Amino acid sequence: MKAFMDRDFLLSTDTAKHLYHDYAAPLPIIDYHCHLDPQEIYEDRQFENITQVWLGGDHYKWRLMRSAGVDEKYITGDASDREKFQKFAETVGLAIGNPIYHWSHLELRNYFGYEGTLNGDTAEEVWQLCNTKLQSADMSARKLIINSHVKALCTTDDPADTLEWHTKIAEDKSFSVKVLPSYRPDKALGIEKADYLDYLRRLGEIGSFAQLADVLIDRLQFFVSNGCRVSDHGMESVPYAEASEAEVEAIFRKRLSGEIPTAQEQKQFKTALLLILGREYHRLGVVMQLHFGVIRDNSQRVFRGLGPDAGIDSIGETASVKELAHFLNALDETGELPKTILYSLNPNDNTAIETVMGAFQTGEAVGKLQHGSAWWFNDHKTGMTEQMTSLANEGYLAGFVGMLTDSRSFLSYPRHEYFRRILCELIGSWVENGEYPNDEKALKKIVEGICVRNAEAYFDL
Amino acid sequence: MKAFMDRDFLLSTDTAKHLYHDYAAPLPIIDYHCHLDPQEIYEDRQFENITQVWLGGDHYKWRLMRSAGVDEKYITGDASDREKFQKFAETVGLAIGNPIYHWSHLELRNYFGYEGTLNGDTAEEVWQLCNTKLQSADMSARKLIINSHVKALCTTDDPADTLEWHTKIAEDKSFSVKVLPSYRPDKALGIEKADYLDYLRRLGEIGSFAQLADVLIDRLQFFVSNGCRVSDHGMESVPYAEASEAEVEAIFRKRLSGEIPTAQEQKQFKTALLLILGREYHRLGVVMQLHFGVIRDNSQRVFRGLGPDAGIDSIGETASVKELAHFLNALDETGELPKTILYSLNPNDNTAIETVMGAFQTGEAVGKLQHGSAWWFNDHKTGMTEQMTSLANEGYLAGFVGMLTDSRSFLSYPRHEYFRRILCELIGSWVENGEYPNDEKALKKIVEGICVRNAEAYFDL
Amino acid sequence: MKAFMDRDFLLSTDTAKHLYHDYAAPLPIIDYHCHLDPQEIYEDRQFENITQVWLGGDHYKWRLMRSAGVDEKYITGDASDREKFQKFAETVGLAIGNPIYHWSHLELRNYFGYEGTLNGDTAEEVWQLCNTKLQSADMSARKLIINSHVKALCTTDDPADTLEWHTKIAEDKSFSVKVLPSYRPDKALGIEKADYLDYLRRLGEIGSFAQLADVLIDRLQFFVSNGCRVSDHGMESVPYAEASEAEVEAIFRKRLSGEIPTAQEQKQFKTALLLILGREYHRLGVVMQLHFGVIRDNSQRVFRGLGPDAGIDSIGETASVKELAHFLNALDETGELPKTILYSLNPNDNTAIETVMGAFQTGEAVGKLQHGSAWWFNDHKTGMTEQMTSLANEGYLAGFVGMLTDSRSFLSYPRHEYFRRILCELIGSWVENGEYPNDEKALKKIVEGICVRNAEAYFDL
Repeated sequence: MKAFMDRDFLLSTDTAKHLYHDYAAPLPIIDYHCHLDPQEIYEDRQFENITQVWLGGDHYKWRLMRSAGVDEKYITGDASDREKFQKFAETVGLAIGNPIYHWSHLELRNYFGYEGTLNGDTAEEVWQLCNTKLQSADMSARKLIINSHVKALCTTDDPADTLEWHTKIAEDKSFSVKVLPSYRPDKALGIEKADYLDYLRRLGEIGSFAQLADVLIDRLQFFVSNGCRVSDHGMESVPYAEASEAEVEAIFRKRLSGEIPTAQEQKQFKTALLLILGREYHRLGVVMQLHFGVIRDNSQRVFRGLGPDAGIDSIGETASVKELAHFLNALDETGELPKTILYSLNPNDNTAIETVMGAFQTGEAVGKLQHGSAWWFNDHKTGMTEQMTSLANEGYLAGFVGMLTDSRSFLSYPRHEYFRRILCELIGSWVENGEYPNDEKALKKIVEGICVRNAEAYFDL
Repeated sequence: MKAFMDRDFLLSTDTAKHLYHDYAAPLPIIDYHCHLDPQEIYEDRQFENITQVWLGGDHYKWRLMRSAGVDEKYITGDASDREKFQKFAETVGLAIGNPIYHWSHLELRNYFGYEGTLNGDTAEEVWQLCNTKLQSADMSARKLIINSHVKALCTTDDPADTLEWHTKIAEDKSFSVKVLPSYRPDKALGIEKADYLDYLRRLGEIGSFAQLADVLIDRLQFFVSNGCRVSDHGMESVPYAEASEAEVEAIFRKRLSGEIPTAQEQKQFKTALLLILGREYHRLGVVMQLHFGVIRDNSQRVFRGLGPDAGIDSIGETASVKELAHFLNALDETGELPKTILYSLNPNDNTAIETVMGAFQTGEAVGKLQHGSAWWFNDHKTGMTEQMTSLANEGYLAGFVGMLTDSRSFLSYPRHEYFRRILCELIGSWVENGEYPNDEKALKKIVEGICVRNAEAYFDL
Repeated sequence: MKAFMDRDFLLSTDTAKHLYHDYAAPLPIIDYHCHLDPQEIYEDRQFENITQVWLGGDHYKWRLMRSAGVDEKYITGDASDREKFQKFAETVGLAIGNPIYHWSHLELRNYFGYEGTLNGDTAEEVWQLCNTKLQSADMSARKLIINSHVKALCTTDDPADTLEWHTKIAEDKSFSVKVLPSYRPDKALGIEKADYLDYLRRLGEIGSFAQLADVLIDRLQFFVSNGCRVSDHGMESVPYAEASEAEVEAIFRKRLSGEIPTAQEQKQFKTALLLILGREYHRLGVVMQLHFGVIRDNSQRVFRGLGPDAGIDSIGETASVKELAHFLNALDETGELPKTILYSLNPNDNTAIETVMGAFQTGEAVGKLQHGSAWWFNDHKTGMTEQMTSLANEGYLAGFVGMLTDSRSFLSYPRHEYFRRILCELIGSWVENGEYPNDEKALKKIVEGICVRNAEAYFDL
């Protein structure tokens, strides 16, 4: 029996151990997609207690606690932080097989030096230990980033954002980590939303679709001048519906007049705007991220109480491969398909996505189209192993840009460690099984590439 | 090489063996969903020969034989029981990798004490042995149940059923196993069926939708007063289509007048009736089981000859996650979502189902929403391992209510053994691999919970 | 660590090694579905260099190179053959986990005696070695077939084909390998294609649907008289839409008049023609292959430059299980369902396909309906293992007709070796794990059956 989560956690062969410890572990982190708050980074926020850090906004943990039958009082309700921590400790202590078990214990080991296991019996001990440590200067937002060997990170920002905090961080010579904005214009595309017109006003005086597009391109250029390398789009599915310019203008006018366009019109509007943005991404060298296959806010009861990101989202329908292919083709037709990363929340889409990608690859970049790392509900050993195995089967794993945290927490960097261990275990298993030669030079290049070098090149960092 | 199906069948590590032999194996069985005939239990039926038991109604075995090219004469035709057994033995003998191979041999070992392997050469020996044993008093329906350590079982019953046999069993003090009815109103929902009006007459004089709902609620209360803890619904997909009360009444009147409603109207009717029943399940503490993703009676040629349950069903389309989510939300909106177990026959639905479930969990129960154990065509090592791994990844495996036989046979209880071995192997592999601590107390709680304790609590038995 | 791709490549247990080396390896090959050019076989083509053989038309390799960021110049462009080989060597050298890595090295070992690994550094050495060997008489098309122990192969041919080269090969007594035509009437079904009427003229004077059906049946009979045992159909999905004879005639007349029928009409036309052909296949004992779940020519930009089969295809939508079931039922209704092999490019369809198949099996043949070996983008260790595991779980693996190359290359026969190793590893793992007895007689029968004997019987060769 292997010891629980020791130095060789998830590493079962000599090759896996060698690749991880000698190559993967020491490498810096490029976290090219996260949801950290740049103000908290600039202000170097410090946290009061472990409940604040772990349960303040982590809907993964909320879901797990609800699944274990914990009353909402102890999750998002008015119980004390200590009581909430107790319930979480009792829950996670029995959450065998769940990635939160691993993430929590990696955080306890890496940030708090706790080598035990967390459960109802040890909750008090862990509570005391973590809260004491959290007071130390080493546990501020910036120190957590630096000590995790993060070289650059990309936050997620609305086009209307002033990037005030990104600018301040860039000007602060005492902090050398690159904190770059990402361009996420979901609200500008959300024509079906009740508050769409309110949002438009944040962008300025907008009277036509052409004007909207112009403003969004202006904002994108502003983002790029502030170091933006990557955009991001969240959607139920990648849309493709053709429409003339005049039709799109009419749809937009309809919305300006207060009427919600039909589902087909919404799709036409989104297709048109995404294609304009896609071409601009290509021109400016900005990577396009497409996140799809998600249904948000399933429980309207909880949504009314807690708002979005309350742990009530789910995987959506299987992707329409055809629409995705048509969308990519519309950009590729004229040679204006930007570097693109596809993420579906539905794991059934893995292989289909990879084969669609493969149809649009060109010499413009190594892995110009990427299948993003196992996302959200797939962000565990099974999901990551399947995504990488599938990517290797259908494409060129060696060109993969690798892991991102997608997280709101400053303590999430062990997810890169988790990913790297799983990567080295997978590659190690192929080598040990005689499926790939034990070629030190090649293995080093592959592992270092996927851990960080590919991302550096791909995002031009 | 491990010996074939020995004491440590499917158990490859010390932890797996320990968990299985010391915790899982001795526990009683709660078979909360089966298709046993309560009359046969009451009358303590005895079987003449092994062909009667194994091939009389087991469409799993019929399919396997047809796939192996066996003529229908030897499956459901007029060949002798001995001839049929010979063909089955020849077929199963080469059915490597098929769960019927394992189930059959577990039954031979557990009930008949046969330690050899079944194939064309051994068919005669097995035939003689089984038929001799079947004559013994130990092999009656009740004895088979008792000797399998079954504590309670839930049959599957139509609302129109008088529950005569359940009552008689309950009154029979010589038999202490709980034999409880389950409420399965598929026929009441089957508005598209040609014989729907005939069925309605079995429920009484029904002139309106409101009356239908009232009668069904009456029957449900009658079932509950007879120990019913769980309902069951079989469907191609979980429906969600809104309609006003007036619209639903109009659809029902249309049907009463002899006209078949449109597909959309059928969906509206089913949605309305399921929501009414769901709310009543919540009020009465009855668990709602939803079985979907199935297409029945694919071969009309065979159906005409043999009727339903003839081995001609198949997995259906991938579930509409959206409709499922809307359906659950409609009950959750008012806090009236009952405990619910979701089973899709399409294994592609596993992860999506779990994430939809996760969005509706509340403190009302541990695992208030459950992803049912790998069902029917997925009821094998691969399917069960995937369902439990996926459940662990996305939710709280420790709260899982575990296995059921879903069987028409009194010899199917080794499927619980099969499940428990697979469960212990999976958990054991995590512990041996250092992914979960070797924490005796926690492991015992998890294993005993999934084997039987969670079901006891969940079904309030 | 196992040595890289040695004698026991992919074989990890003693049983697997025994089954492979003693039973599987020595068996001849029946390649019942390939895309070899019969003219090249008749003329016994010899190849100039390894780039010509490997990169001349292999869109798998083109895709991989594009994914690795190689410029099109070095793929299908005007770079020299030596330059192209260099880029391929550099790409494949790092293509860890990709089946092309294994296929290429199996070809280097089996045909060129090269035991090293191919990468940028060894490219020159391999280039020299291969090109020298390619000049030898042993490396002609016929010798490659003979030395690979191929007993029979089925090419893929249009109904309009004269079968001139098949006839000549059959008459050539110096070459004893059976080279049989397969009947692939995709163009006759492609009513939506712009050049459909041109194609019809190749079949003769056709003025009605009935005439088209008659001509196609005539051509089928001609194919059968030339040894044809199997047909093939490629399609996005298996169609099922009912229509009267008059409606189908009207649709066909519409097309003759130059108008493209609607999507629904296309589906009705295809359903009608496929059903007529299916019945004829049954009557003549011809196996029906259905290849579906594919989207062709995703990148219109590349398609305009390179035409079809340019590495720009992808997996398509999940199959409509219902339409597939209805289609099979329409033939089964009257007992006219031919032996059928189903291949979906979408691996999500695996289990659904197998359960639909299971509903239509009859005593007419062992495995009358077959789930074809993992196809195209699934043709790797993961895909094959999953297809066979799933087939074993749901049906009768022992009756599986096994592997085919589906290839345009004379060097692709190691894919049978690859398949056989994976098969023996899978079966060996079950035996070693105590899940199937170590029954020499049964294992020999199963392995030899899947490798070649089942195909001999199924295709009546």
